[in-house]
This record gives sequence, C-alpha cells and structure tokens, in this order.
Amino acid sequence: MNKIMGARTSFRNINTYANRGMSLEADLKASNDYYLANDIAVIYKKPTPITISKVNYPSRADAVIKEGYFRTPSTTDYNGIYKGKYIDFEAKETKLKTSFPLNNIHPHQIIHLKKIYKHGGIGFLIVRFTVINKTFLLPIETLSNFLDESTRKSIPLSYFEKYGYIIKDKYNPRVDYLNVIDKLYFGGNV
Amino acid sequence: MNKIMGARTSFRNINTYANRGMSLEADLKASNDYYLANDIAVIYKKPTPITISKVNYPSRADAVIKEGYFRTPSTTDYNGIYKGKYIDFEAKETKLKTSFPLNNIHPHQIIHLKKIYKHGGIGFLIVRFTVINKTFLLPIETLSNFLDESTRKSIPLSYFEKYGYIIKDKYNPRVDYLNVIDKLYFGGNV
Repeated sequence: MNKIMGARTSFRNINTYANRGMSLEADLKASNDYYLANDIAVIYKKPTPITISKVNYPSRADAVIKEGYFRTPSTTDYNGIYKGKYIDFEAKETKLKTSFPLNNIHPHQIIHLKKIYKHGGIGFLIVRFTVINKTFLLPIETLSNFLDESTRKSIPLSYFEKYGYIIKDKYNPRVDYLNVIDKLYFGGNV
Repeated sequence: MNKIMGARTSFRNINTYANRGMSLEADLKASNDYYLANDIAVIYKKPTPITISKVNYPSRADAVIKEGYFRTPSTTDYNGIYKGKYIDFEAKETKLKTSFPLNNIHPHQIIHLKKIYKHGGIGFLIVRFTVINKTFLLPIETLSNFLDESTRKSIPLSYFEKYGYIIKDKYNPRVDYLNVIDKLYFGGNV
C-alpha cells in the first residue's frame, strides 16, 4: 500500500481517466497503465482474437485488413505479473441489479482460470454491477465452489457481497484490484 | 523431465505436427498445445493486435471486420505460467547464417522483458537460425548484458552458441524450451 500511495507523486499520464462512469475496461486500462508507470506490476489486456481472411498489401508496412472475424477467446482477457506471481483474470460488467449471468463467461475461460490456480497462479473474475456501481473481485477458487455447489445460471449479488471482495472506488488507480490481491495472497487482511 | 517424459503416453492430439521444416511459430504452437494437454504449463501466443476501423454488424453474432490495421505490439508474443512462475518470451526466425539482426525485436519488447525479470518472472528470446536449423533460448539477463556491452546491430551466432542455450530438436514437444527453463531456473544442469 505504501508503495502505491508513495508512487502517486510520480504519476503523470493517467489524469484524463479520472472521470466517473467510465467503462470497466477503460478503468482497468487506466489502472494497469498506473501499475506499469509506477513499476508496481506488468499486466496487460490481450488483443481481441481475430481471424483475418483478406488483406491488401500495397506495401509491406501498409497492410490493410479487408475482411476479418472475431474469434472466441481461448483464455481470459488479462494477464501479467505482480510480486513474482502470475496474475490472470477476466473482467465483466452487468446492468442487472441482483445477479451476474454466468453466460457472460465462456466455459473454457473458467477451465483456464482453474488451470492457472492449479499451476500456482492467481486467477479471478472482476465483476462490476454498473447500476449500483459496485465492483467485486471473485477468486477462481471461490467461483469453483459456487459452480460445484449450485446449478444456478447466475451468481447472485448477495454471493459477491458475502464471498467476493469489493474493489473500492479510488481516484488513482481507479480499480485497485491489486490492493485486494495483496490482502488475499500477500499476507494482508481484507 | 520425468513429468514431461511420463506424460508422453497420455499425449494424443498433436501428432499431426510431427513433420520437420515447420515454422517456429507452428512448432511453438504444437509445443504449447502439448504442454497444455499434458498439464505441464499454460502458455499461449497472444493474438495479433489490430485496430479495427470498420465493422459490419448484420447481426450481433455475425460481425465482419471490413477495415483494420496491424498495430505494433506493446509486449512479447508469448506468456503464461510454468511451475508457479510467470513466463514471457518473444520468438523469431532468421534466414541469416551468422547473426540475428536486433531490428527483429522492438525496443519496447526488450524493455518489457527487462521489467518481467525485475518483477520476478522468467523472460527470454527464442531465436531459430533456419538455414542451420538451430534454435536457441537466450535469457533476458544475458541479452541485457549483450546490449550493455555491445553496439552491434545484430547478435552473432557465436554469441548464441557461447551464452545461449540450444533447444534440442525433439519429436514431441517439437521445441521443448521448458526443458531449458527447468535446467536454468529449477535446479537442473544445462
């Protein structure tokens, strides 16, 4: 925490992200930029996977894609390293007020996160309920329990409130999920 | 090593990759598929980053990209987890016989790998000299030394032979770079 707070003075580029109501993706980008600029963690969103079927090559440097299709991702959107640990997560928003539909997450993304956990990494979901403006971190080990014990097709908000960890709204970084990771995996108290 | 060898019997899907002369990218895909199928490691190539400027949406599921451009990647192509450690690397082929031109690697990719090392991850280059069919692993800490001490615009083959680690050609996985990682970072002898 001291490192994060202490680093604020050296922060320069991300002020433009301070406005409220931005998408979770934009907030995470700003947060990951902040972590990177302040040498806290190296975490990126992966590019969207695309199958390219037609390309124009007027010259080698100026290729233009003329036809392409979105592929289903094999993994989660975000990964990287923090304090020597492999970090891997998927982030989703929902407009629903009382539950998060599981069809927002591909089954192979859940399988992927379970593998990450098994191999000693830190895997989780970040879910934002936009209407109430609450953002939760749910570790994959907790999500696994839910899926083992429930046949529901959505995770109730009350489950996030009981078993997840709220990511407090901050000025900078906007979505300080590593603060929760610190407390969960590096000896702090939540 | 035992784990890798022992796992061979449970291997099923990747036999079609056994032919020689495939590209390094295809060999790495087959190797990463092998590691994944045998629960050895979870390592993926990132999608190619693309800026999309025109999309047709005949329906939500059938979006077709009509115009897009290749972006310069911010990071390396490959990352994932092995034995609890964060793994990150870039892979390149060269047709040259005696050196690997450094303009094959973007400067920010080298900066990225240095950051990975600093944060406790394992970062490296895999370079294949296609004409002599030799594939080397060069740890980022070694590459950093080279860049600090040399003003050359290419790394001589002799440098790879002296300071890099050859990745032996195998049947399966084709490019067993984790065997080198085992020896370098998990207590084996090279």
